[in-house]
Amino acid sequence: MQTVNVRSSKRVELIDITAQVKEIVRSLGVEKGHLLIYVPHTTAAVTVNEGADPSVAQDIIQALEHLAPHGAPFYQHLEGNSDAHIKASLLGASECIPLKDGAPVLGTWQSIFFAEFDGPRQRRVYLSLSG
Amino acid sequence: MQTVNVRSSKRVELIDITAQVKEIVRSLGVEKGHLLIYVPHTTAAVTVNEGADPSVAQDIIQALEHLAPHGAPFYQHLEGNSDAHIKASLLGASECIPLKDGAPVLGTWQSIFFAEFDGPRQRRVYLSLSG
Amino acid sequence: MQTVNVRSSKRVELIDITAQVKEIVRSLGVEKGHLLIYVPHTTAAVTVNEGADPSVAQDIIQALEHLAPHGAPFYQHLEGNSDAHIKASLLGASECIPLKDGAPVLGTWQSIFFAEFDGPRQRRVYLSLSG
Repeated sequence: MQTVNVRSSKRVELIDITAQVKEIVRSLGVEKGHLLIYVPHTTAAVTVNEGADPSVAQDIIQALEHLAPHGAPFYQHLEGNSDAHIKASLLGASECIPLKDGAPVLGTWQSIFFAEFDGPRQRRVYLSLSG
Repeated sequence: MQTVNVRSSKRVELIDITAQVKEIVRSLGVEKGHLLIYVPHTTAAVTVNEGADPSVAQDIIQALEHLAPHGAPFYQHLEGNSDAHIKASLLGASECIPLKDGAPVLGTWQSIFFAEFDGPRQRRVYLSLSG
Repeated sequence: MQTVNVRSSKRVELIDITAQVKEIVRSLGVEKGHLLIYVPHTTAAVTVNEGADPSVAQDIIQALEHLAPHGAPFYQHLEGNSDAHIKASLLGASECIPLKDGAPVLGTWQSIFFAEFDGPRQRRVYLSLSG
């Protein structure tokens, strides 16, 4: 198991970690199997989406803010970050990508994003290969 | 493949199954690989989130009720549980967690929840290890 | 790694690919492990839900349209398909299902759906087995 360290700089942001993930997978020299990307936090998540135009990530963040507004009146959790927990469950803590020829088979426009919902913080993403 | 049996007692609830999952993984004696948690139902799901403060699970449930209200007027499905199907797809039927030293590498605050959206019912969760 | 080719005929639709997936898994002759279903697109996704009554898929589509409306005024991405990117992240690019006796252990009512959010297009779904 390998760890990608991520430093977020905003409360909510999508951080493209594709280059780090690809470099780690390459260094492991595993030709095929499943790449598991796992976020061990409860106010952050992982998602795969377009990385070429940064406005896509912005629109995803805005949409999630509409779906789970920061400070909605019905939240009972007293830490004030219920929206972050909800957003984390909507995107999910894990994503799996097939490996082929030693690299994740991302589509042309796909990037891997660490989704920060309660930053800025120092965060970790676990990578694990099986197969 | 192992099965966790879950008995839900409400229409909608998040049930913490972390202890059962950890015990099964421990009993299997597998040191590393991927733990797949799979829900074979269409009105239930699995999610990983905070288990320490139960108000987090309550806020997630409330938020999902806002996103897919029970009995919204546009639903066409005649069984009256369309909201449960929608909530199930939003959280997802599967989650993968890396294993290390024979245990899932959950973060400090992470618990594994069976998400019931159309209970009360007798339910199953499948666990499978690979690697 | 195997590929399922999918031809969508609408802008938004859920396409049941269960039969193709089962046939490919059967042809590979792998008894157990994890079936990874991966969508290499940024405006499409994979979800597991009820396939028996097509109104469930319709209700999921309608609910997602409420959550991320086509053409919402706050979108910054200029291609006009931000809703499709958002819906894709909500459902996710990957789903894993355990294999048993050479077949995915789908529940009684579960089908595997390719979720098209920006069609009609020619699309691909990757299948990969590990374990």
